[in-house]
Amino acid sequence: MCTATNYTTKDHYFGRNLDLEFSYNEAVTVTPRSFPFEFRKEPALDTHHAIIGMATVVDGYPLYYDATNEKGLSMAGLNFPENADYKPEADGKTNITPFEFIPWILGQFETVAQARTALASLNLVKINFSDAYPLSPLHWIISDRNESITVESVKEGLKVYDNPTGVLANNPTFDIQSFKLNDFMHLSTYPPENRFSEDLPLDTYSRGMGAIGLPGDLSSSSRFVKAVFTKMNSVSGDSESESISQFFHILGSVAQQRGCVHVGDKFEITIYSSCCNTDQGVYYYTTYENSQVTGVDMHKEDLDGTALASYPLIKGQQIHMQN
Amino acid sequence: MCTATNYTTKDHYFGRNLDLEFSYNEAVTVTPRSFPFEFRKEPALDTHHAIIGMATVVDGYPLYYDATNEKGLSMAGLNFPENADYKPEADGKTNITPFEFIPWILGQFETVAQARTALASLNLVKINFSDAYPLSPLHWIISDRNESITVESVKEGLKVYDNPTGVLANNPTFDIQSFKLNDFMHLSTYPPENRFSEDLPLDTYSRGMGAIGLPGDLSSSSRFVKAVFTKMNSVSGDSESESISQFFHILGSVAQQRGCVHVGDKFEITIYSSCCNTDQGVYYYTTYENSQVTGVDMHKEDLDGTALASYPLIKGQQIHMQN
Amino acid sequence: MCTATNYTTKDHYFGRNLDLEFSYNEAVTVTPRSFPFEFRKEPALDTHHAIIGMATVVDGYPLYYDATNEKGLSMAGLNFPENADYKPEADGKTNITPFEFIPWILGQFETVAQARTALASLNLVKINFSDAYPLSPLHWIISDRNESITVESVKEGLKVYDNPTGVLANNPTFDIQSFKLNDFMHLSTYPPENRFSEDLPLDTYSRGMGAIGLPGDLSSSSRFVKAVFTKMNSVSGDSESESISQFFHILGSVAQQRGCVHVGDKFEITIYSSCCNTDQGVYYYTTYENSQVTGVDMHKEDLDGTALASYPLIKGQQIHMQN
Amino acid sequence: MCTATNYTTKDHYFGRNLDLEFSYNEAVTVTPRSFPFEFRKEPALDTHHAIIGMATVVDGYPLYYDATNEKGLSMAGLNFPENADYKPEADGKTNITPFEFIPWILGQFETVAQARTALASLNLVKINFSDAYPLSPLHWIISDRNESITVESVKEGLKVYDNPTGVLANNPTFDIQSFKLNDFMHLSTYPPENRFSEDLPLDTYSRGMGAIGLPGDLSSSSRFVKAVFTKMNSVSGDSESESISQFFHILGSVAQQRGCVHVGDKFEITIYSSCCNTDQGVYYYTTYENSQVTGVDMHKEDLDGTALASYPLIKGQQIHMQN
Repeated sequence: MCTATNYTTKDHYFGRNLDLEFSYNEAVTVTPRSFPFEFRKEPALDTHHAIIGMATVVDGYPLYYDATNEKGLSMAGLNFPENADYKPEADGKTNITPFEFIPWILGQFETVAQARTALASLNLVKINFSDAYPLSPLHWIISDRNESITVESVKEGLKVYDNPTGVLANNPTFDIQSFKLNDFMHLSTYPPENRFSEDLPLDTYSRGMGAIGLPGDLSSSSRFVKAVFTKMNSVSGDSESESISQFFHILGSVAQQRGCVHVGDKFEITIYSSCCNTDQGVYYYTTYENSQVTGVDMHKEDLDGTALASYPLIKGQQIHMQN
Repeated sequence: MCTATNYTTKDHYFGRNLDLEFSYNEAVTVTPRSFPFEFRKEPALDTHHAIIGMATVVDGYPLYYDATNEKGLSMAGLNFPENADYKPEADGKTNITPFEFIPWILGQFETVAQARTALASLNLVKINFSDAYPLSPLHWIISDRNESITVESVKEGLKVYDNPTGVLANNPTFDIQSFKLNDFMHLSTYPPENRFSEDLPLDTYSRGMGAIGLPGDLSSSSRFVKAVFTKMNSVSGDSESESISQFFHILGSVAQQRGCVHVGDKFEITIYSSCCNTDQGVYYYTTYENSQVTGVDMHKEDLDGTALASYPLIKGQQIHMQN
Repeated sequence: MCTATNYTTKDHYFGRNLDLEFSYNEAVTVTPRSFPFEFRKEPALDTHHAIIGMATVVDGYPLYYDATNEKGLSMAGLNFPENADYKPEADGKTNITPFEFIPWILGQFETVAQARTALASLNLVKINFSDAYPLSPLHWIISDRNESITVESVKEGLKVYDNPTGVLANNPTFDIQSFKLNDFMHLSTYPPENRFSEDLPLDTYSRGMGAIGLPGDLSSSSRFVKAVFTKMNSVSGDSESESISQFFHILGSVAQQRGCVHVGDKFEITIYSSCCNTDQGVYYYTTYENSQVTGVDMHKEDLDGTALASYPLIKGQQIHMQN
Repeated sequence: MCTATNYTTKDHYFGRNLDLEFSYNEAVTVTPRSFPFEFRKEPALDTHHAIIGMATVVDGYPLYYDATNEKGLSMAGLNFPENADYKPEADGKTNITPFEFIPWILGQFETVAQARTALASLNLVKINFSDAYPLSPLHWIISDRNESITVESVKEGLKVYDNPTGVLANNPTFDIQSFKLNDFMHLSTYPPENRFSEDLPLDTYSRGMGAIGLPGDLSSSSRFVKAVFTKMNSVSGDSESESISQFFHILGSVAQQRGCVHVGDKFEITIYSSCCNTDQGVYYYTTYENSQVTGVDMHKEDLDGTALASYPLIKGQQIHMQN
């Protein structure tokens, strides 16, 4: 399904794996400040923060999967089947459709704190983009350099959770997903000590044994645990090369290899992995078959303009031959 | 520590992760047919098969970590501490040092079957390359398109195991390492069925749940199980781009992220990942910080020459900017 | 901490392990129909169903841990620290203290359905029994032959969950505890089939391998999973001897052995295990040190009386010597 | 299948679970000193140490499953399918059949050290007791108060392993079975500390969480790990009642409940559990349906006699009614 994370060195980075069995022709898409963001039930934003991220553009509208605005606020939607529950229009609430949610947040706010305040009156209203593009069941992570939150619209209403991990996967609901981390608190990046029995001569026969018990399957709750472990323990230099390399390694720890997850006749794979330097506005990505990091810099676009800029993904393996 | 694997589509591929906390200035190294391979206790090979692989070249001698010869036979040495036991020189045996083992096998043989025959009289003799380059405790995987074997010199003597997985990690000894796979036989790439209790309404809440129980830590025995699962279930097209992409994804499933494995004050990481097309003689690699695939083609070298050709690794992230 | 379960053959059985590091002088206690049940905030029950169960009697009041009434309705309270949240007195609600909860339910109702209806207006009010006997943080399982429910008073209010497992342990809250079962749905009492890879010759080297992955530690969520697996798959004859033997084996699967769970300087152990034949009104128990089944038959008491009948536990091992 | 263990307080205790889907009419059997022990290929022992244990007596010969001699040396045979390999008669060796092995060892030796010496020349010869009683594939644990060894006759020959755990289950071979303990060295009877990430507020929501990861299924290798954990961490008083209670709790931690292990149409269950006070010569047991401890004291028999004394198992639940 998907995994999102963030990571901070000198700059702050935000990104995700998109795990699916098909692709929607998503492209790196820059929305400039004067692109008119219209909303089904709320007034349009004629000017707003510029946004860069991955989107499928349909009828001129950027359906963002994950994105960052020019202030560094970032947001991603991840699959949340069986749990996502969108609502009828509600009086006295701000009625935003799920496909408008990323533009609405990133268009206006600079921090998670501001977003959290706005969420108090939000109603995620059940209106399809179109018959051809019905709503996906999603939940969201919103991050800035200082904090992250998870937003879920479920049967009981809209839930906003502090997310100290900065990581999100899919099901179950975030309270259950987070609770599971408690069961792994004794795992460590350090070599294990013998706590089993001091009377037995046990052997640390390999490096890495301190984390035995960490799950390695590709279910959403296992990916969450593994990604949190990898991210929370990550160490790297703070150069751009070192930072984004470490970021893609975090995502790589929960990537989906073709063949490992059957979906009917197809296989779910990591279609793309993204990593946005949210301070510099540069969006990097790799695809399942192209492991070279490709980048798009929002500041090289005309951010005061009105037209979307869209960069199709480079998907074939870009091999550099040394001889 | 390390993980090696192979993979077959139209062509046959062989490679490995090298996981360490430091680097020995290893380089992609081509040994042509007339490079004189001398051995400490056996006659030299004046002409032999050409070899490509990763090596540290010391005093003009290629200390190969993993390599493939022009006939497609491949071999890799992996760390095997506490278990590797090298022997005194033995009369009536072929006395080869561990650092000569890859050249001796790949220099002469075309198939695993031939290598297996030669191993019957082999003695891995305990002679350091030099005081500065003492022997490493290693075991080896030897693969061709049809089969793989694991070779271990332990206290009881030289053991040669059929290796139907084509995968090797580190400790424990291969018999124990392989036995562990039995404990995971019920794991699957397909969605789980409820076998727990037909009277309980259990929910397949995520894709990938059929493999819950697969280990995700970075100990050698867990990496072995996870790599075997990923490799044995791998699916890809058979083009070069698709094949090597899948290969690097298999290795990525057991890559070591910086911060996850403490070794004193340092961290063990995946220094490089390699993938050799053993039919074409092209050796591809990525490094921890350079995710672009770089290649070296042995057939572009003078394979009838006497001089080693060496290509230092390109280690910085090679970012392609789209705008 | 504790585990409760039920089991049905010809008759219906209900019981629990009490896991603690100390004992409160609990005794098998029969409350006859005319014992005056007074409540702090509600009218007394002058006559009610007779009850048998384990209780500490304080100042003439039976503080029941688990009990069954003469109609076969059963109920047990289990430790629920950090989660139990009792409330101030609430107008328009039925205000019952946690220590009154078992008498109030079992005194009046014959079925879970009736209890569920009554729970709709229940408020578990925060009133200690006395300074010396403050409230314990508890949640409850209520069972009859046909169904079970779990009742939790948490911060958000009183929650009543259907409990198709008939099993309850401790933390986390029942929704999270139950959700975890999904992760084990592929485990089975049957021998495993090789789903890992049809190309590897894996071996069913032992009976019982179909459930590899079932947890065996003594944390509450692991005990819940193991007890549910054992109970849902239990098979026995339907005689009294066979039924209660199987019941105690279910509880034995999650018993706590002295030494395995440190609580400061002490150890949490299974103080007693109980099994009540809810159709016959016979309460059986074993203790940590007395594995012989001891029984008390409520129908041998004067159930129309007003006085509690109390049977102290026989705690020493009752060895039968054959020679 | 089976689990054997020992335990030491003031006295030394030795016993086992016998897990099978059927029973052979085994009985507690005392062999006095002058019962003539004949051997197929070796001279008879006309006088020997007296022995008490569980045996099926066939044609006047006690086929012991587990036993202890009057000197306190103890021994048990456990199922070892696919691995046990008995040999042809060998010149220059002591040729003992597997069914004679327990009498031969316990008849002559007082300590494990003595037994180990004798094993140096032992050959376990493949001779059936009779057509109706063919050999079972077994391996053995031999224990005294100070040490334990495991004896396996496999394809490579007779192996004698030090067994510092004092525990034995079934497959795989003891070297592999023991190696697995290393993977659990970080588990503890103490509450877990948060080693996962100091930046996450993880919660010790239950007692017993320090051992999360301990297996709870009934396969032989999982039972071995769980039994070793329970035994090595066991704590009890040293009275007879406390000691044997703790012993049966250790065995209870790996008991097999009916329904949890399918064997064709039947179920493997713990037929009996035994605990012999090896210092006092008292053999205690429980059965699947009789949880009361029953005992037989070898010193109440005529140990200088020639006739076996046999006590059929009391199998029905022996309920003590308190009213």
